[in-house]
Amino acid sequence: MRRLQLLLPGPVSLHPEVELSQALPMINHRGPEFRELMRELTSKLQKLFGAERVALLTASGTGAVEAMVANFVERGEKLLIIQTGTFSDRMAKIAEVLGAEVELVEPAEGEGITAEELDDALKRSKASAVGVVANETSTGVVHKNLQELARVAHENDALLLVDAVSYLGGHPLDVESMELDAVASASQKALMAPPGLAFVAWGERAAEKMKNVKKKSVYWDLESYEKFYLEKYETPATPAVSLMYALNKSLDIIINEVGINGWIRRHAAFAEALNELVERAGGRVYPKRGWRSNTIVVPILPEGVKPSEARALARERWGIDVGGGAWKLKEVSIRIGTMGWYEEDVVYRALSFLAEIYKAPKGLVEELMEEYKSKL
Amino acid sequence: MRRLQLLLPGPVSLHPEVELSQALPMINHRGPEFRELMRELTSKLQKLFGAERVALLTASGTGAVEAMVANFVERGEKLLIIQTGTFSDRMAKIAEVLGAEVELVEPAEGEGITAEELDDALKRSKASAVGVVANETSTGVVHKNLQELARVAHENDALLLVDAVSYLGGHPLDVESMELDAVASASQKALMAPPGLAFVAWGERAAEKMKNVKKKSVYWDLESYEKFYLEKYETPATPAVSLMYALNKSLDIIINEVGINGWIRRHAAFAEALNELVERAGGRVYPKRGWRSNTIVVPILPEGVKPSEARALARERWGIDVGGGAWKLKEVSIRIGTMGWYEEDVVYRALSFLAEIYKAPKGLVEELMEEYKSKL
Repeated sequence: MRRLQLLLPGPVSLHPEVELSQALPMINHRGPEFRELMRELTSKLQKLFGAERVALLTASGTGAVEAMVANFVERGEKLLIIQTGTFSDRMAKIAEVLGAEVELVEPAEGEGITAEELDDALKRSKASAVGVVANETSTGVVHKNLQELARVAHENDALLLVDAVSYLGGHPLDVESMELDAVASASQKALMAPPGLAFVAWGERAAEKMKNVKKKSVYWDLESYEKFYLEKYETPATPAVSLMYALNKSLDIIINEVGINGWIRRHAAFAEALNELVERAGGRVYPKRGWRSNTIVVPILPEGVKPSEARALARERWGIDVGGGAWKLKEVSIRIGTMGWYEEDVVYRALSFLAEIYKAPKGLVEELMEEYKSKL
Repeated sequence: MRRLQLLLPGPVSLHPEVELSQALPMINHRGPEFRELMRELTSKLQKLFGAERVALLTASGTGAVEAMVANFVERGEKLLIIQTGTFSDRMAKIAEVLGAEVELVEPAEGEGITAEELDDALKRSKASAVGVVANETSTGVVHKNLQELARVAHENDALLLVDAVSYLGGHPLDVESMELDAVASASQKALMAPPGLAFVAWGERAAEKMKNVKKKSVYWDLESYEKFYLEKYETPATPAVSLMYALNKSLDIIINEVGINGWIRRHAAFAEALNELVERAGGRVYPKRGWRSNTIVVPILPEGVKPSEARALARERWGIDVGGGAWKLKEVSIRIGTMGWYEEDVVYRALSFLAEIYKAPKGLVEELMEEYKSKL
């Protein structure tokens, strides 16, 4: 098996200590060793989400979004979803299957929604909940204005539900101080853990609402997760213990070794370097300035270059695995993740790969490497 | 971290190669390496379940049961559940939350249901689906008559839905030849993999029915799993790749190194030795003869011995972690799993532990060890 550096929209390459931690001996999830692990992990997740209430689910990010919608949106209730790509479409599908009435609002090309636009849309639609994909993994469009969106939602008596799967760890987030109502995320993106764990964090308003929302699932019942944690630091069903070892280790690195702000800066500096390279070499990236993600860069490929060709070049010449295009950009773009574990050479290789594709002027890669290093 | 031998109702201790396989490099779940892994795993799971249709979910066993009920039981439909312990109660709760009408039928103490009893119950209740926990992890009651139960269910125009979480790998099972309609299972029991993966396998009748059952979930939508496999050996959402490495390795050991029948025999021989010890030392096990599991042994403790004391003795003197009692047996029993990876000394230690508790005659442990070895 070749060890390719993953620069995907997720999963990501893991720190060697995170990889190895998965091989620790299996333990009883109803025993004292597990409770100690759960206690540690919970406290790190609470810090990361800025929330008291965080449920750890054995699931993918899609599962966490389903859990969020199931607990905070009643059947028949109207949910307004900001349509930015594949993952907002998925949230819409989840909500429909769970019996909500879904209305979509589409922002301008390559942009997210502004607070004013959301206010208009809510006044028109009378929806009582808003769903937003904070960082659209399919298009690279990010919402940095979550706090304002929450304010507008509350002014319109609506809850703000946030899919932060590829946002958390790559952008500042704090459920309580930003007054977000509920946030879903997952392990395999900017938290640098293997896939298989997912989370929902929620605040006071959402907790109040949940009491009156009819249960739609036992597996996604967040009240039972909260009860199990509070009573004994356990999970209602058997959790993925080896993935928890890995997450505990990766959060140690993120929170204690690098620091959350340093971790976010690391993503931002890498993403900026990649975006800069494309533009300074005369190319175009999909998201407009101000709406660009720290964790996913989406370059529109030059005429005549297919995503499959670009990806093959990345793998074969530069040893990096980048993602293909998605949603309506499927045939014209690639997606480069800036998440996970990498050493400096990986940044150099990713820049060199793009320099080759966009025929960048000589010296640009070196110049951007200097800028990158200065920002860390 | 102490390396305790887990003899729990699950999770289980892993073969060293299974443990280490989890540390393999992360790969793209939309790339060729993943498809190869998925192809291998699928073919092993198909062999193990005796079914063409097997969905691999990132979830616990509870998730798989929820997926099974969500896809094969319509809202408002009546589901008859054989009540044998905690996990049949859980299935009932899941079905109720998903909108089914649930009726319980309770077999005699320490027994499962016979085909005749099921026939009576179905004629009375007119239920169109039956839910049975093949191996009740809480009480150690096993249904070895699944094939007959399926026949009776079909004669009464009902589907048979089987929770085989701690049954698969420990007892013979074959969805197609036994004409079971749907079977749910999980990775962390007799398949000797870490927790976090779960499965639903289903046959032709269930596939036909599923077409007309209204979707209740996107995450549990088995039709979408089937579509993704058939089209490209991928999963709809991001799967737990490192757990799949482990399961692929453990199934290699079970299917190719030991052989499925040998694997089942291994559980049976260990369980028989433990049950024998208790009875020959004058104690009692909960399940009646004919209803005893190969994977979980449930001894009723001698008067005056508390489960917590027995468990502490097991850990401290014998280095084995056994489970506490559950359901109505919580205060009077322990549960000893015979699943996972162990060398012969573990069988000896488990027997010695029980010999101590039940004050067994001298030499009984050695005698039962000989019997055990002769059965492998």
